[in-house]
Amino acid sequence: MNTISGELLAQVTVEAIEHRRDLHRHPELGWTEFRTASRAAAMLTSAGWQVQAGDPICELDARMGVPDEEELAEAWRYAGENGGDPHWMDLMRGGSTAVVATLDTGRPGPVTALRFDMDALPIDEATQEGHRPAREGFRSRKPGVMHACGHDAHTAIGVAVGRVLSELRSSLSGTIRIILQPAEEGTRGAASIVAAGVLDDVDYFLCPHVGAESLRLGSVIPGATGFLATEKLDLTFSGTAAHAGLSPESGQNALIAAAHAVLGLHGISRHSGGNSRVNVGTLVAGAGRNIIPPNASLKFEVRGDNNAVLGYLSAQAQRVTEGAAKMAGVSASLERVGHAPSAASHPALVERVASLAQSTQGITSVDEPVMATASDDATAMMERVSERGGQACYLFVGTPVGDGHHTPTFDIEERCIGIGIELLSRVVLDIAGDVDRQSPA
Amino acid sequence: MNTISGELLAQVTVEAIEHRRDLHRHPELGWTEFRTASRAAAMLTSAGWQVQAGDPICELDARMGVPDEEELAEAWRYAGENGGDPHWMDLMRGGSTAVVATLDTGRPGPVTALRFDMDALPIDEATQEGHRPAREGFRSRKPGVMHACGHDAHTAIGVAVGRVLSELRSSLSGTIRIILQPAEEGTRGAASIVAAGVLDDVDYFLCPHVGAESLRLGSVIPGATGFLATEKLDLTFSGTAAHAGLSPESGQNALIAAAHAVLGLHGISRHSGGNSRVNVGTLVAGAGRNIIPPNASLKFEVRGDNNAVLGYLSAQAQRVTEGAAKMAGVSASLERVGHAPSAASHPALVERVASLAQSTQGITSVDEPVMATASDDATAMMERVSERGGQACYLFVGTPVGDGHHTPTFDIEERCIGIGIELLSRVVLDIAGDVDRQSPA
Amino acid sequence: MNTISGELLAQVTVEAIEHRRDLHRHPELGWTEFRTASRAAAMLTSAGWQVQAGDPICELDARMGVPDEEELAEAWRYAGENGGDPHWMDLMRGGSTAVVATLDTGRPGPVTALRFDMDALPIDEATQEGHRPAREGFRSRKPGVMHACGHDAHTAIGVAVGRVLSELRSSLSGTIRIILQPAEEGTRGAASIVAAGVLDDVDYFLCPHVGAESLRLGSVIPGATGFLATEKLDLTFSGTAAHAGLSPESGQNALIAAAHAVLGLHGISRHSGGNSRVNVGTLVAGAGRNIIPPNASLKFEVRGDNNAVLGYLSAQAQRVTEGAAKMAGVSASLERVGHAPSAASHPALVERVASLAQSTQGITSVDEPVMATASDDATAMMERVSERGGQACYLFVGTPVGDGHHTPTFDIEERCIGIGIELLSRVVLDIAGDVDRQSPA
Amino acid sequence: MNTISGELLAQVTVEAIEHRRDLHRHPELGWTEFRTASRAAAMLTSAGWQVQAGDPICELDARMGVPDEEELAEAWRYAGENGGDPHWMDLMRGGSTAVVATLDTGRPGPVTALRFDMDALPIDEATQEGHRPAREGFRSRKPGVMHACGHDAHTAIGVAVGRVLSELRSSLSGTIRIILQPAEEGTRGAASIVAAGVLDDVDYFLCPHVGAESLRLGSVIPGATGFLATEKLDLTFSGTAAHAGLSPESGQNALIAAAHAVLGLHGISRHSGGNSRVNVGTLVAGAGRNIIPPNASLKFEVRGDNNAVLGYLSAQAQRVTEGAAKMAGVSASLERVGHAPSAASHPALVERVASLAQSTQGITSVDEPVMATASDDATAMMERVSERGGQACYLFVGTPVGDGHHTPTFDIEERCIGIGIELLSRVVLDIAGDVDRQSPA
Repeated sequence: MNTISGELLAQVTVEAIEHRRDLHRHPELGWTEFRTASRAAAMLTSAGWQVQAGDPICELDARMGVPDEEELAEAWRYAGENGGDPHWMDLMRGGSTAVVATLDTGRPGPVTALRFDMDALPIDEATQEGHRPAREGFRSRKPGVMHACGHDAHTAIGVAVGRVLSELRSSLSGTIRIILQPAEEGTRGAASIVAAGVLDDVDYFLCPHVGAESLRLGSVIPGATGFLATEKLDLTFSGTAAHAGLSPESGQNALIAAAHAVLGLHGISRHSGGNSRVNVGTLVAGAGRNIIPPNASLKFEVRGDNNAVLGYLSAQAQRVTEGAAKMAGVSASLERVGHAPSAASHPALVERVASLAQSTQGITSVDEPVMATASDDATAMMERVSERGGQACYLFVGTPVGDGHHTPTFDIEERCIGIGIELLSRVVLDIAGDVDRQSPA
Repeated sequence: MNTISGELLAQVTVEAIEHRRDLHRHPELGWTEFRTASRAAAMLTSAGWQVQAGDPICELDARMGVPDEEELAEAWRYAGENGGDPHWMDLMRGGSTAVVATLDTGRPGPVTALRFDMDALPIDEATQEGHRPAREGFRSRKPGVMHACGHDAHTAIGVAVGRVLSELRSSLSGTIRIILQPAEEGTRGAASIVAAGVLDDVDYFLCPHVGAESLRLGSVIPGATGFLATEKLDLTFSGTAAHAGLSPESGQNALIAAAHAVLGLHGISRHSGGNSRVNVGTLVAGAGRNIIPPNASLKFEVRGDNNAVLGYLSAQAQRVTEGAAKMAGVSASLERVGHAPSAASHPALVERVASLAQSTQGITSVDEPVMATASDDATAMMERVSERGGQACYLFVGTPVGDGHHTPTFDIEERCIGIGIELLSRVVLDIAGDVDRQSPA
Repeated sequence: MNTISGELLAQVTVEAIEHRRDLHRHPELGWTEFRTASRAAAMLTSAGWQVQAGDPICELDARMGVPDEEELAEAWRYAGENGGDPHWMDLMRGGSTAVVATLDTGRPGPVTALRFDMDALPIDEATQEGHRPAREGFRSRKPGVMHACGHDAHTAIGVAVGRVLSELRSSLSGTIRIILQPAEEGTRGAASIVAAGVLDDVDYFLCPHVGAESLRLGSVIPGATGFLATEKLDLTFSGTAAHAGLSPESGQNALIAAAHAVLGLHGISRHSGGNSRVNVGTLVAGAGRNIIPPNASLKFEVRGDNNAVLGYLSAQAQRVTEGAAKMAGVSASLERVGHAPSAASHPALVERVASLAQSTQGITSVDEPVMATASDDATAMMERVSERGGQACYLFVGTPVGDGHHTPTFDIEERCIGIGIELLSRVVLDIAGDVDRQSPA
Repeated sequence: MNTISGELLAQVTVEAIEHRRDLHRHPELGWTEFRTASRAAAMLTSAGWQVQAGDPICELDARMGVPDEEELAEAWRYAGENGGDPHWMDLMRGGSTAVVATLDTGRPGPVTALRFDMDALPIDEATQEGHRPAREGFRSRKPGVMHACGHDAHTAIGVAVGRVLSELRSSLSGTIRIILQPAEEGTRGAASIVAAGVLDDVDYFLCPHVGAESLRLGSVIPGATGFLATEKLDLTFSGTAAHAGLSPESGQNALIAAAHAVLGLHGISRHSGGNSRVNVGTLVAGAGRNIIPPNASLKFEVRGDNNAVLGYLSAQAQRVTEGAAKMAGVSASLERVGHAPSAASHPALVERVASLAQSTQGITSVDEPVMATASDDATAMMERVSERGGQACYLFVGTPVGDGHHTPTFDIEERCIGIGIELLSRVVLDIAGDVDRQSPA
């Protein structure tokens, strides 16, 4: 029987909380996680894992929504000046900030993978006393950037699980893989790791997330189903400026096109195949009050219960933007900058995780799988694993979340970190701990 | 010196008023003026004019907005049963209801043409006592059809002028032409007569209209300028029906296209080259409350101070409709069903008419030429005459007009008919009365 | 043990098919079912039922979408001239065409109610040979009106079940009620019967429908859940006409308001609480091409998975129409002309019907309850029954349906009529057949 | 006879060109002309004029579109560090940057006023060799700010005319007033000076502008008519954010309101009373791709041939924005940030200026008054002067203008400065030079 010593768990948990707070101080947006990723790579290397970073495990062309050169350079500079690991950073130049750590036990057995995301959000963190990171001094040091979705905790849990499994190495069979993913926000990063083939041989796949709608500390939800498939799109209309008083007719009005597009996109029909969502989140247009607007940029997203609904929305969105451009005599450019399919957890793995959760210390309630109503591009990995016959399981670890994910007062109850470390370690041990175990049929 | 006997004028005026009332009882919409035109053709023939009707003077392909077979057949039947002249009607089958009467004096001289329009409007005539046609028994006998723009008076004046000039034939030189035009409403008819070449050799062109904004009886306005050029368009969107509850996504929504088109058309930019107008006058769409609308039909018009502005509006309208169709995934068909250019009266002819008006009995005020703010496709004829070096003059003959043109209570003070007959006859006599006169250089 | 003689069933089935064909020839739109309802009332009276019609069981103010006086009068005339029963028609003047027939056994027992709808659709029936009603001579005799949803069969089944139960009267306990409902199309009629209290004491409620998406003859589906709640709305914008060339600014453009409303309604947000639907089915606007449109009328509907979603849609629709009117400076009138809540069948009654179906002759397959994706205002009755502690069950009886419900070639395989009669009769017998049975607790 | 010495003109012209280049290097946006205004105030004081600045001649509440505190403070700092005059700057704190200089001759006579505007535009000046300010080293030193409309030349001409008139003081009667106006761009500044009463007693008012559509060097146009009246408006919609995937229905979408507003504003009807213009120049909305947009800000303008048309547009814009807000359930705030009425030059003063221009050195062509198709809030001053019985004249002084006003390559041929100085000085001398002259009746 393989068990994990309580002392080991206690020690790595203390370190993980410290790690999380360090990451919280230094949040990094998608594709710029130079400090976060390079330091985690170094930590996992120290813990005895074989670590890869950058291009080999991050297909460049499959990355979506990569920031411009200037933003990348500025983030690179910040990471360099604030403790980023130069060796690993070198492999990540240009924004290939994925990290994959592998523990090859040398014994035959299944391939088990865990995924942790690392990026922060463009939100200004709260400053009030009631917000613990502010009160206790680990508030974000970057104005306008914040870990408001718990990815700091995810990364810290990932590294900590690496340390625990490293200690248990002699009891494990098969291959264990820890994936640290960039750019989950905007569902921009997973596809590049999938495209690099990292998931192709995975038998068991686990993906934890701290917090879920009203999930208390001590509760966990093994399994989530019905993630909304989603696509993120950037739309630009380009027209011709003209003086609005002297010769308005010589302009080609990009804002008129944008207004038709906004109404047209929100007016895309509901679909009998499932729920859908459309949101034009931002619009910036125009060059001056008295100038016919020569430009308009929109950021929007569509979501659907399944890939068929998403495909419908995507095709309609294409049509709406072409038509809106035509109406105003301007040109349109529509770029896909994020994508996540729908995917479901595998019942057998969900059952296995649930069963282990029942006997995990600190877990007081194991709840039923939920219908997710948001998106996480872990689904791109789950989908690939499922296609290849493997089993995937998404996992919520309960914690209060301040005023909610993606708000300036988001925070976690850090005890959830220890729970996550223990549960995930035990699941891997259960899967890979029997040295005679084979891959699932 | 050529003068017109008061006795002759008195007699034809009495007949003209009778004629006008007869026409008022039997109004006929554009391209269905079978009764009106055939009887006028017969009257002018009796008066000694050489009369042509139908295809030779009405280019079929240049007609716009011709009603469907059923409506033509019904109007034909009505005309036949209510005194239409069979001989002339035969030449007008299918809706070529133009009439051109020619008086060739046999003496060299200018070609002088007068144009009178004949069609009525789809308006239900008022029934109240205060409305004279109702009170005196010559209200329209056709529900929903009414002479609410005075074309009954125009036709009657035209025939009466024919009678007067016939009597004066020996004093005239050159060629006189009376043009009875169908389908002025919607600016649909003039182009077909122009296309048939009827205006190509005209030296002097006159076009009267009874009534103008607040023009009292006894006033005339020789000359109008700045008619808004206009185009009338019929737009149809064709999509695909679907059950709105069961599978809305399988529909292609023509009403969504129409809504975008309505807003897009009204949103066409103002033009620095002059005033413009856009109006989507009617929209009919849909097949049932719970069915994705598979069809939408719009009738709209654009107008501009000049042909450049009109061309801009027309091109934009084309673009808007194509774009709106694309947005909703439906097809669009855009048909031009009416057109009139902008045109101006010729100062020399205006001056000549004004001078004769000063000495015409019953005319108490000769007013300055006005900027027209409506459209009349007489401009297509004026434009052709001007292009060929001739002189054109539009002419308003004052009369009260009830609650205005195109209203159910429109009516005229019939004394304006006599004024019109006398003035027009005197103008022709002035132009053609000198048997030695040549065409203008 | 109570059984139904095969001979009786065979006889009433033959008559029911004849009845259905008679109704198919004489389709009547909602609230004008004077002939259908009066004759059915007479038939049920003959069969020994106590029959009520008109106002007492049809709350006038709760009727929605009642046609205008003229249409009512015309339908009344038609019914009178084509065999409508004068006695019963008298009770239905003004369009209160509901019929409720009661069989009071005199023995204590549950109240069991069955609902059948009677109205036809504004569809022109197909004329081709391949369409059996055309081939066999019972095609609709009313141009533009057709039984394209099987309500002719429903009514015929209802009367036939009445005959069967009448014969079994001595074996029954409690009260049986047959409800013949007007105006199901547009979900306009059920509310008035509910408001009259007809469902208040019902313990068991059954509602059959012939045909369902790809349901073969011989199949039945006891139970349907998740009917989309729906609201049908008529919207009118009233503005001010003006000449589009002379003074467009003095108009108040109702079509502009309508265009904004169409886009605004379709742009109402999706709801996280369930599926929704929006459809503006028809729009008619305008008074002429060159007139600023003074009027626009829209017929639209919203649907939702549940009453909360429907309530949201309804509130938003109100807001959109007020805003659109304000934008164009016109007034808006929004009238609710149809409504059906969401409702679900009761598992116990579904189970009971399924069990009886298994042993019913001609039924070869008993399928699982389906998620309905359309609406039927039977749900208003189901909701009332459920609120009062009773059990409701919706029931699909399989048949091919030509090219689908609400199409010109809709038709049924008439053998489904016999199946419906037998199954419904057996269900009632099962519920009310035990003379000692009490109402459900 | 009063003449102006060529030597004096030559000298002030050289200084004026130097002054213009200095201003070109240090452009200042509206209400932040601290350096420009304070130095001009000092120069005019040195030249012997009585100078007022700030609040007494700049009604604070009538200022429109004043920048926020931060922008004012930054501009104040820049002016202080780059040669702004501290004494005069002190009077302009908070952005009251108007200057009025008065020359009271002590002799009875008319009040003559000249207006020069001072502000620059938010445009990045061209850097290419072909652009003289770049080539000769007086390109703007402020990124994103540029004198691209010639107000640097206007200010320089104003001060130079002050010097000339000061020298001629003994030959003058009445009162001369030089007005240096802030914030002409956006038509934001004139109203505050009018409100302060500065124009109330003016008999003659002159307002020069360098350059006009294709006006060559040496040409001048005395008189402009038909300035489009204009209003500049800032519109903000405020709604409620919500997660676009989790609960879109709980958002109140400000961008939907903005899209309806854009289409609604551009769809405001044309007006039979004259030309109009509508332009929504800029729109910024939204908080993130996956967030229901809680905010949207629009900057737009309307223009009309006359104040009636402008009033119509303004009233409609109010209605459209209220309606659009209502449609989306958000609130709207509409603020007028700029305004200029329509106004015309006085024929008598135009004639006088034209006559003097004929005999002014360097002027080779005196052109006919033009219909302006842009806006200049000098019209607010012209309107006030006209209301009080005075005469106003707008005056174009020809020069090539690079690629046009408001473009990055705008430049002037500086010889126009000398022409402007001489012509304006001569006009004032003509008006005020006769010491016995009285005010106009």
